[in-house]
Amino acid sequence: MIPQDILAQDNEAHLPALKADYEALGAHLARRGIDIGAIKAKVAAYKVAVPSWGVGTGGTRFARFPGEGEPRHIFDKLEDCGVIHALTRATPAVSLHIPWDKAPAADLRAKAEELGLGFDAMNSNTFQDQPQQPLSYKYGSLSHTDAATRAQAVEHNLECIEIGQALGSKALTVWIGDGTNFPGQQDLTRQFERYLDAVRQIYARLPADWRLFTEHKMYEPAFYSTVVQDWGTNYLIAKELGDKAFCLVDLGHHAPNTNIEQIVARLIQFGKLGGFHFNDSKYGDDDLDTASIAPYRLFLVFNELVAAEGKPGFDPAHMLDQSHNVTDPIESLMLSAMEVQRAYALASLVDRAALTGAQEANDAIAATQEMKRAFRTDVEPILAMARLEQGGAIDPVSAYRRAGYRAKVAAVRPRSVAGGGGIV
Amino acid sequence: MIPQDILAQDNEAHLPALKADYEALGAHLARRGIDIGAIKAKVAAYKVAVPSWGVGTGGTRFARFPGEGEPRHIFDKLEDCGVIHALTRATPAVSLHIPWDKAPAADLRAKAEELGLGFDAMNSNTFQDQPQQPLSYKYGSLSHTDAATRAQAVEHNLECIEIGQALGSKALTVWIGDGTNFPGQQDLTRQFERYLDAVRQIYARLPADWRLFTEHKMYEPAFYSTVVQDWGTNYLIAKELGDKAFCLVDLGHHAPNTNIEQIVARLIQFGKLGGFHFNDSKYGDDDLDTASIAPYRLFLVFNELVAAEGKPGFDPAHMLDQSHNVTDPIESLMLSAMEVQRAYALASLVDRAALTGAQEANDAIAATQEMKRAFRTDVEPILAMARLEQGGAIDPVSAYRRAGYRAKVAAVRPRSVAGGGGIV
Amino acid sequence: MIPQDILAQDNEAHLPALKADYEALGAHLARRGIDIGAIKAKVAAYKVAVPSWGVGTGGTRFARFPGEGEPRHIFDKLEDCGVIHALTRATPAVSLHIPWDKAPAADLRAKAEELGLGFDAMNSNTFQDQPQQPLSYKYGSLSHTDAATRAQAVEHNLECIEIGQALGSKALTVWIGDGTNFPGQQDLTRQFERYLDAVRQIYARLPADWRLFTEHKMYEPAFYSTVVQDWGTNYLIAKELGDKAFCLVDLGHHAPNTNIEQIVARLIQFGKLGGFHFNDSKYGDDDLDTASIAPYRLFLVFNELVAAEGKPGFDPAHMLDQSHNVTDPIESLMLSAMEVQRAYALASLVDRAALTGAQEANDAIAATQEMKRAFRTDVEPILAMARLEQGGAIDPVSAYRRAGYRAKVAAVRPRSVAGGGGIV
Amino acid sequence: MIPQDILAQDNEAHLPALKADYEALGAHLARRGIDIGAIKAKVAAYKVAVPSWGVGTGGTRFARFPGEGEPRHIFDKLEDCGVIHALTRATPAVSLHIPWDKAPAADLRAKAEELGLGFDAMNSNTFQDQPQQPLSYKYGSLSHTDAATRAQAVEHNLECIEIGQALGSKALTVWIGDGTNFPGQQDLTRQFERYLDAVRQIYARLPADWRLFTEHKMYEPAFYSTVVQDWGTNYLIAKELGDKAFCLVDLGHHAPNTNIEQIVARLIQFGKLGGFHFNDSKYGDDDLDTASIAPYRLFLVFNELVAAEGKPGFDPAHMLDQSHNVTDPIESLMLSAMEVQRAYALASLVDRAALTGAQEANDAIAATQEMKRAFRTDVEPILAMARLEQGGAIDPVSAYRRAGYRAKVAAVRPRSVAGGGGIV
Repeated sequence: MIPQDILAQDNEAHLPALKADYEALGAHLARRGIDIGAIKAKVAAYKVAVPSWGVGTGGTRFARFPGEGEPRHIFDKLEDCGVIHALTRATPAVSLHIPWDKAPAADLRAKAEELGLGFDAMNSNTFQDQPQQPLSYKYGSLSHTDAATRAQAVEHNLECIEIGQALGSKALTVWIGDGTNFPGQQDLTRQFERYLDAVRQIYARLPADWRLFTEHKMYEPAFYSTVVQDWGTNYLIAKELGDKAFCLVDLGHHAPNTNIEQIVARLIQFGKLGGFHFNDSKYGDDDLDTASIAPYRLFLVFNELVAAEGKPGFDPAHMLDQSHNVTDPIESLMLSAMEVQRAYALASLVDRAALTGAQEANDAIAATQEMKRAFRTDVEPILAMARLEQGGAIDPVSAYRRAGYRAKVAAVRPRSVAGGGGIV
Repeated sequence: MIPQDILAQDNEAHLPALKADYEALGAHLARRGIDIGAIKAKVAAYKVAVPSWGVGTGGTRFARFPGEGEPRHIFDKLEDCGVIHALTRATPAVSLHIPWDKAPAADLRAKAEELGLGFDAMNSNTFQDQPQQPLSYKYGSLSHTDAATRAQAVEHNLECIEIGQALGSKALTVWIGDGTNFPGQQDLTRQFERYLDAVRQIYARLPADWRLFTEHKMYEPAFYSTVVQDWGTNYLIAKELGDKAFCLVDLGHHAPNTNIEQIVARLIQFGKLGGFHFNDSKYGDDDLDTASIAPYRLFLVFNELVAAEGKPGFDPAHMLDQSHNVTDPIESLMLSAMEVQRAYALASLVDRAALTGAQEANDAIAATQEMKRAFRTDVEPILAMARLEQGGAIDPVSAYRRAGYRAKVAAVRPRSVAGGGGIV
Repeated sequence: MIPQDILAQDNEAHLPALKADYEALGAHLARRGIDIGAIKAKVAAYKVAVPSWGVGTGGTRFARFPGEGEPRHIFDKLEDCGVIHALTRATPAVSLHIPWDKAPAADLRAKAEELGLGFDAMNSNTFQDQPQQPLSYKYGSLSHTDAATRAQAVEHNLECIEIGQALGSKALTVWIGDGTNFPGQQDLTRQFERYLDAVRQIYARLPADWRLFTEHKMYEPAFYSTVVQDWGTNYLIAKELGDKAFCLVDLGHHAPNTNIEQIVARLIQFGKLGGFHFNDSKYGDDDLDTASIAPYRLFLVFNELVAAEGKPGFDPAHMLDQSHNVTDPIESLMLSAMEVQRAYALASLVDRAALTGAQEANDAIAATQEMKRAFRTDVEPILAMARLEQGGAIDPVSAYRRAGYRAKVAAVRPRSVAGGGGIV
Repeated sequence: MIPQDILAQDNEAHLPALKADYEALGAHLARRGIDIGAIKAKVAAYKVAVPSWGVGTGGTRFARFPGEGEPRHIFDKLEDCGVIHALTRATPAVSLHIPWDKAPAADLRAKAEELGLGFDAMNSNTFQDQPQQPLSYKYGSLSHTDAATRAQAVEHNLECIEIGQALGSKALTVWIGDGTNFPGQQDLTRQFERYLDAVRQIYARLPADWRLFTEHKMYEPAFYSTVVQDWGTNYLIAKELGDKAFCLVDLGHHAPNTNIEQIVARLIQFGKLGGFHFNDSKYGDDDLDTASIAPYRLFLVFNELVAAEGKPGFDPAHMLDQSHNVTDPIESLMLSAMEVQRAYALASLVDRAALTGAQEANDAIAATQEMKRAFRTDVEPILAMARLEQGGAIDPVSAYRRAGYRAKVAAVRPRSVAGGGGIV
């Protein structure tokens, strides 16, 4: 982990500048009628979950280039997640993927407790074949033509719930790769009927205090059609299932040019926003680091979320879901958690009354000025101060590098094998 | 109109080849177990409406280049529509746009009857300012912040219903241009609430035997957000309104790469497919001639429609909606009506039992072969024979040109003014 | 125009906050080793041209909703441009469009001089029919099949050069709407050969100290193919023509998801970047206000431009090109000019040595941190101070509204007619 | 392989229908003034190469679901390719991928000769790490910041040439995965300079009778920028290198909505079209079966190719490049080879003189009618007859299934392991 003295040293080095910046920002915000302390308190309370698989190096169908000290199993992964939370104080929960992360519940709970972590939504896996699930998902899982295969997929999801209950999780996220690669390969309607029938069986066994999140995606791994292709279909699912079913929005799962924040607004309005898989994308489901490509888009999503704060039943889940192909995953996840908090802080700066006034007056210039004024504020001092005050790092990447964590774990974790073998 | 002797001459010239082609195709289809006569009967019964505005030359924000003999008013337009139907026998109904096509109902009915035409869905216009509707729609219509403007837009739609009732129409199509050009310009949720409230008032006054079609569109004329942006929102509207409300699908109103046929399948499954605005597109709402860019996509849409034939309550409306910028609109509309019939005929050739068998067996190769076998059949002889037997032209464009219709009307209709004046 | 006392009042109201913000920012930048004065000097020297047509309300093919006090002619337009420059001190040049802006050169020069304005690149118009150019451009201009029509288009461009010479302009921008709406409508190769032949004739008559800018665009007004569809074709044109020919980049003229900054980098590398038409877009050529949708993208473009500063021959032209459909065009253009300067300032904050170091070390995390650190800095105080010191407004929109300019001109300029008439 | 008697049986079953269809088509084409024999001769002479890696089951970053009897090594792959050619008579050459297909040249030549196969373009691999190339390509290959890594990549390409020379290949195809995942990760210009420098070294060692094909791709595996991102950059490369360098066009490597046939036309016009990687796509580089999604688009590409026949220096290479995730790869490749031939046949039916006439007259209706008339002709009898006359199968999939080839090889080739392990 990160030695406290090294963290202290690193913070000390950054503290004078932070103090000056924080003070100046406080004065500036005060001139705008905003209390910096209130924003800092909001940021401090804002958390985002980390996916267990995110701490391993990602890859593409062409290749995977592993980094040093890759986690060997869920306990290594939890340790890495612990580092992220220790430095950012933003990621107290980990989202597990079954069967990848299977382990005795007591051991998982103990390890998590040791690291100050808890468990977020459970993720099932019916997009890959696994020895534990002998029937193949090559042609689908919950929507498969074969009833036995569908039953196996349902069973697997129920097992995920069971595991999650033992860990204190309160939600199941269902993402399937089902779809087709050829027009005509499946009847699009019957395929969806089979899916609905199967997911209803999962929903029927959902504990009373759990939520079910379904996730839509336009394409990949299927390349002609996807069963849960967009928010329209996702909404229909959540509606068919019932009050504990909600839609999950992954920022990279949409058609080009889609106005994602409007989808978020619609789902909020109709009571079906379950939460987010945060990441960024330029082309498709690129799974790039959050806000690395389009930070204003993320801000606009958070503008909807902040506007909905306090609305009855509004309680979205937040998780990062990224593929770290060329960076140290811990660094990427720390920065991404900070970007989520940044977007939240920026959206919290919007003067809602002024914005509403501009909207009612059809004064688009005043409206855009209000939005941009909030967005261009540099809230880094607020985020850093919130981290520091909770025991984290002013500059998490700096502290992490100074601590030499990666080299330390590389010394005990054997080098993992480069991947990619002819999938082109 | 088209003199009968000229039509007869033209048909005579094409008849020998048609007979030979039809006979050969009949023999070929018989080998595939398909009765050519049954397909021909289906095609003969298949009709598609023509939009009144489609017979004028279209344009872009940059310019409009009018053709010869542009229709001056709705009666000229009806005459042009009459030509289209006379030659194709595929377009017996015209869809009117109010206020563009306002005229005494009796006169409209008389003219239509004379031409063998009826009236399809009514279209309201709240995307342009009109002297009859003094409040401006610059900032929206049914979703406007101002209650009086919304009321005006509702009134206008009710007037369209009233006009339509006098003409025998049975549906109202509502497309609005409402949206925003800046993030923050409007609250996306409140804007949609206002829309829902207004459209409910229209729905409340819909005659018992009418249907209300709402149309979604991703963008244009608004370029950041559109109130009814996609089928997800459109479905919510139809659901909120009730059993007489349905979603209209325009083939050019979707995000890039969208699987449109899947949307059609979903709307059919959930009982909300209202109908189509047929056209084609490569980039956006290009309003190109039907099937001119992606004929296989149109076939796939019709594959869903043919598969749904006989399903209770399944009764979609069909209309062309195109912008003819560089062609004689009559020629474009004739060809497009034929393309719609062609797609219908091709989809009717799919061996549904064989396709289902391939699907159940997860035999994607057999499935794609069945789809492509149907698609690559040249059904032109079927279409031509169906036209001929109903009194139309074997080759409508040929007969139309031979008749010199355009030159004749150009002699009596003054040249219209070129458009475009600085909208860049 | 804007009374000096009102401007002074408005500046006085904003000055205390500006001083405090500027001082705090200076201290912050000093901690990062950056001299705020140097950045301010760069910003003060950075100018962007305004298009004459931009001060009128824009529209779409569906409608145009004119605002109050629309400019009636080029002299009104120049007056509006003068206001923009007076308040922002960022837009000393106006780009004319012929024939829209035709007027005696002496009058134009006198009016411009009075307003402290000059003339930027000339724009020809062969995408609309005009009485002065009797042959129609319905089927193309410089690439038309008809030699006489091509000759007319060449002549018109030569006239634009002539007019520009009398005004002190030094560049001609050629954008054509030529293309096709149907596969097969034209032979794509012969069409481009005709274009090249025609544009060579224009180039041959280009004054020695002029530059020729050609502009590419993916689609609209043509919807199947465009003659100059992308930067690849645009580069071929500039290469074929010679050393005075360069490529113009409009931010909205690209395919979805295109990496525009990489195109900018390539054109710089191969010596063919002519300049920019700045605006923003979400879907197509939306012509939205600069940086209103994707401010980070604009920053990335400027990151390439700042990196190329000092490179021999690097001298791109900058112009705004937007369609102001729902705002006061003067306000939009002021904000947009400021956004261009903002992007320039932000890109100037990037520590090039640190960035290069991260790049050489393949340290993507350090690289993205450096980019984001620059981007999230709030440089508004620098822009405002630069404006103030040059005699402009701290807050141009505030001063403009306080001055009541729009109401004043509305009193003397008659209301223009709402547009849109059936182009759907 | 495929027993001759089984092939004969299968052909016999299909022969009567084929004869009747061929005769009817011949009569129909004769009425259109087209000699069916001439088209058949063109088709018979038209060949397309098969990629060695295409006969294995493909996959995505999420999973790979292997089929029965997967080829274990290049000799199994060649055997599978031999089946494809035996039945289609369309694929006499195989394109190898190094190091995947490394084996003694004499053995490869002997095996190929036995199967009636030859060797097409060689493909290098610098997008994966390989034991033979110890330096990692994680951060790039030919454009890597490290000179030694670039040198290794150059060396590898030279080795591919050497191997190819021993096999009778005449071309090297260079596709790299180089790019970035973050804005700022690399300097876009320096990265391209390094690439150019490296590829020049390869080009310098290209045998006199070889061609170098470079391939562009918009994204994947890099997701912010790609070094060779589009045809513009690809053209610059080919131009920089010299007369033996050409651009390869993969149908799935473009931005959404791109007009690919226009790119083909431009590359032909400027003498730089190297050839194709055929496949189809709906969303990105989906690598779906050729013409399974957009058959008219493929026809339009071939319309350009047929129009260029006979042009000096015009000699494009043709290869399939697909990922067969849910089908038997042999079946997919057979159908795809047939689709390429179909598109060629259809484009050969276009009456060039009539099309040119319509173009010169700006008669878009006549032009689109000519294009569609060719496209909708069912040329399957021509393709089948050409296959039969060359000793292939009338219906290759039918004959292949009847022969039970897959079951036979599955009996001797052990089941390959399912892939996918955490790359999400």
